[in-house]
Amino acid sequence: MKGLEDRIRKEGRVIGDSILKVDSFLNHQVDPVLMDHIGAEFADLFHGVTITKVLTLEASGIAPALAAAYHLGVPLIFAKKSGSHNIGSDVYTSVVHSFTYNRDYTVQVSRAYLASDDRVLIVDDFLANGAAIRGMMELIAKAGASCAGVGVVVEKAFQDGGQQLRSSGVRVESLASIASMKDGEIQFVPEENTGN
Amino acid sequence: MKGLEDRIRKEGRVIGDSILKVDSFLNHQVDPVLMDHIGAEFADLFHGVTITKVLTLEASGIAPALAAAYHLGVPLIFAKKSGSHNIGSDVYTSVVHSFTYNRDYTVQVSRAYLASDDRVLIVDDFLANGAAIRGMMELIAKAGASCAGVGVVVEKAFQDGGQQLRSSGVRVESLASIASMKDGEIQFVPEENTGN
Repeated sequence: MKGLEDRIRKEGRVIGDSILKVDSFLNHQVDPVLMDHIGAEFADLFHGVTITKVLTLEASGIAPALAAAYHLGVPLIFAKKSGSHNIGSDVYTSVVHSFTYNRDYTVQVSRAYLASDDRVLIVDDFLANGAAIRGMMELIAKAGASCAGVGVVVEKAFQDGGQQLRSSGVRVESLASIASMKDGEIQFVPEENTGN
Repeated sequence: MKGLEDRIRKEGRVIGDSILKVDSFLNHQVDPVLMDHIGAEFADLFHGVTITKVLTLEASGIAPALAAAYHLGVPLIFAKKSGSHNIGSDVYTSVVHSFTYNRDYTVQVSRAYLASDDRVLIVDDFLANGAAIRGMMELIAKAGASCAGVGVVVEKAFQDGGQQLRSSGVRVESLASIASMKDGEIQFVPEENTGN
């Protein structure tokens, strides 16, 4: 997605060789018009695929996932990190390892909102090692529902989460795919090579 | 906002005399079309007021606030709860007391995204005692910016947060204002009496 790559080039800040801060438009300050374009792009990419729900993880996945749900015409569910919320005990849970903070946390979704006939599109802001996505896939599996695909705004293609998911047969669409960030310079994977 | 009140009557679950669960369309599962209507309604209500940013608090404020920011044509910022994020040290912070969990937590926003000439509309999903809203107002004050008003989706008018804010001269618009929830029955404040 050309406009997104330009925005990342212009405003993204690289820290070390693997951290990309895009908090001026994606995950702290948010550009609502860009979110709308992102949502429309996901809806286009998954056109023709049966999708009944969009699932994301609080908090930074919510903005792009809401836009995707709007354009797909389906409800959004955001999984919650336990401890911070009381959504009752009637939940599906999974444990996600955060590499950034080197700890495990539990994510949960009310059983009421995922049914066995749901076909769920997972949307998130970043895909790196894939731990959060796999946690959401586990929630979907526990509900007996199926995962219709994964849409991420930014994929760090130099980490192996995306490759692992695709090898296991999951359709993963990333709107910007970063090949490397060595020496502070962002290199994107050319669109014809993203495997989408 | 008529459609919202109907939705609360139909899907809201009252627990005790003061807890209202609307997690089928607002803060766990989210109806993106309703969010769009909510965003448009906030933009209408604050039409003619200079607003340069929308500010909310992660996570459940993000969906209605993103829609409001979209319709107002300004960026959204979501304040983060510290501990869960690393947004650096160059932040404004304030301490918010959670009555639900009976503990204090710190909320923060990067200094880069709030400037002294910003006129900020605060948007949140709920207003009860007003602690989260006051925390966000403190962030705005610390930046030397000004608060253009407060928009909340659901106000619990039987708690005093809204009254306190209005008494101190803040314009507060709530799209649904609940007078009482005694015996599980939701009574709304008639629209002509909401003080808006």
